[in-house]
Amino acid sequence: MSAATIDVAGIGNAIVDVIAHADETFLAAEGMAKGAMTLIDAARANQLYSHMGPGIESSGGSAGNTMAGIASLGGSGAYIGKVRDDALGAIYRHDITAMGIRFDTPAASTGPATARCLILVTSDGQRTMGTYLGACVDLGPEDIDPRVVAAAQITYLEGYLFDPPRAKAAFRRASAVAHAAGRMVALSLSDPFCVGRHRDDFLTLISGDVDILFANEAEICSLYETDDFDKAAAAVRGHVKIAALTRSEKGSMLLADGQSHAVPAAPVARVVDTTGAGDLYASGVLYGLTRGLPLPTCGAIGSLCAAEIISHVGARPEAALDKLVASAGLVPQG
Amino acid sequence: MSAATIDVAGIGNAIVDVIAHADETFLAAEGMAKGAMTLIDAARANQLYSHMGPGIESSGGSAGNTMAGIASLGGSGAYIGKVRDDALGAIYRHDITAMGIRFDTPAASTGPATARCLILVTSDGQRTMGTYLGACVDLGPEDIDPRVVAAAQITYLEGYLFDPPRAKAAFRRASAVAHAAGRMVALSLSDPFCVGRHRDDFLTLISGDVDILFANEAEICSLYETDDFDKAAAAVRGHVKIAALTRSEKGSMLLADGQSHAVPAAPVARVVDTTGAGDLYASGVLYGLTRGLPLPTCGAIGSLCAAEIISHVGARPEAALDKLVASAGLVPQG
Repeated sequence: MSAATIDVAGIGNAIVDVIAHADETFLAAEGMAKGAMTLIDAARANQLYSHMGPGIESSGGSAGNTMAGIASLGGSGAYIGKVRDDALGAIYRHDITAMGIRFDTPAASTGPATARCLILVTSDGQRTMGTYLGACVDLGPEDIDPRVVAAAQITYLEGYLFDPPRAKAAFRRASAVAHAAGRMVALSLSDPFCVGRHRDDFLTLISGDVDILFANEAEICSLYETDDFDKAAAAVRGHVKIAALTRSEKGSMLLADGQSHAVPAAPVARVVDTTGAGDLYASGVLYGLTRGLPLPTCGAIGSLCAAEIISHVGARPEAALDKLVASAGLVPQG
Repeated sequence: MSAATIDVAGIGNAIVDVIAHADETFLAAEGMAKGAMTLIDAARANQLYSHMGPGIESSGGSAGNTMAGIASLGGSGAYIGKVRDDALGAIYRHDITAMGIRFDTPAASTGPATARCLILVTSDGQRTMGTYLGACVDLGPEDIDPRVVAAAQITYLEGYLFDPPRAKAAFRRASAVAHAAGRMVALSLSDPFCVGRHRDDFLTLISGDVDILFANEAEICSLYETDDFDKAAAAVRGHVKIAALTRSEKGSMLLADGQSHAVPAAPVARVVDTTGAGDLYASGVLYGLTRGLPLPTCGAIGSLCAAEIISHVGARPEAALDKLVASAGLVPQG
């Protein structure tokens, strides 16, 4: 097994976020379930867009956000995801590569446009999302570059990847390549509805392909169909090497080798927008693992990254996370 | 003269902003003059974009920002500007029309892409801009819908419109149509460098076509090539019906009918980003004029709108300006 030259390879749905303000009446008129992420088709996306207010566009996608965190922490990364060769696809590619993340997946030259997530923010700070997967449905096993995956210490996959039809095969190929190279595979469960859509697949994966699992309380409870977090935590033990379970302001719990480590949430002056909290927590834990740091330290880095992201609008870091982590004394100084 | 059915028709460069963080070293390496807006061509825009960090996209353009303010104040408006029939053009059109502003100018189906302004924000909050005018160069007199201009109480034009070659003819046509219908024409000088590029044109216009002039201290001083604000203010008297001259934290001065009204700046807890201050001040003054309010009240509404825009990142209002103005007691309650 040769030394890894990449810290983390992230695989996910490459999505441009379109964020607008809306009120409850609008959500009701559009028949949207507040707080939920709903998959929508192109016609519905166009219709909803034509009804909603002026927007702000920014690159998003769960694994894309996590890779932004890895880059900001000073880690090296690669991203695998599918855009179309259109203007939003060019923006998405620019934003990933401008962070120093390698992104070689070719853009689709035919088929649906680059994916977008229409995000409606209500005055209480909650987000209600309609996602048009667009070109993401074209991601397939042929897009997994085995050299990239074999070179990465950890290959990280978002659960949302199970929504487009062929990405599951891409996931399986990536997992096989990573394990053949002696590397680790991480999975995030993404959201409780996503778990509901793919529970059997996820349970199978966790018993075989996944070394590191990320989930929040609602997701891990949905996976094991229980309301009891402790039961869900007990159920996942033994299936994965490391489980990192987040509980919002209650912090997180890291399970490994029969031990459990409780990690407090990092203090936040004001919670502005919770989007990306899980994605950035994963950045911190993954970064810590690639640096060989003890699990509680990995969790503390994750807490710090999550605190940064929820203190402003948007799911990509604004502060330099490497400096935040260094000034908190969480990484050995070079 | 029939009653106006539109409060304000704005004509400007339809530009999508791409905002990214940068440091002084980056500006120096790119040879950019800090704080300035520089016109760049497509090749330079692509080069600069490839060098800069991840961005956030939002609709901008000076007159577009002003029309967003008019809409938020509860006024009716129309926008005339040129985009290409591409993804950024569709975003620009959506954002204008989603505010309730009429926008009928057909998109160009050939020629350059929709305009973009690459904005680099340094840690001191200053913005350094490179503008690629793209499809804006295709705006011409044929894009002036005489029914729209004749129906608007005030036709408002941004000075930046003199940069693309054919827009000057569009401006002249709009001005002629407006005056033939007994309406008023307003002009913003946009920025001191813009004044330097088009000083003779602006001086001619102000002596004939322009009823209401908006300028900040640097712009009016540049127009009359003086360092003395009072001299510049004296020079503009008699040329226009109303001159609204802004002086940042010193507030503004409204000149009309041999009188001058000093209006204080509205208080701001923290200045976050000054972009759009002039555009939104113009929204407030124009709105007040269309409601027949006294000049000092028009200025006070302008100050309030400017204060809202500089208290957050971005040049389009986040708060409902109609509510802000109503709670400040500046408009008669219905």
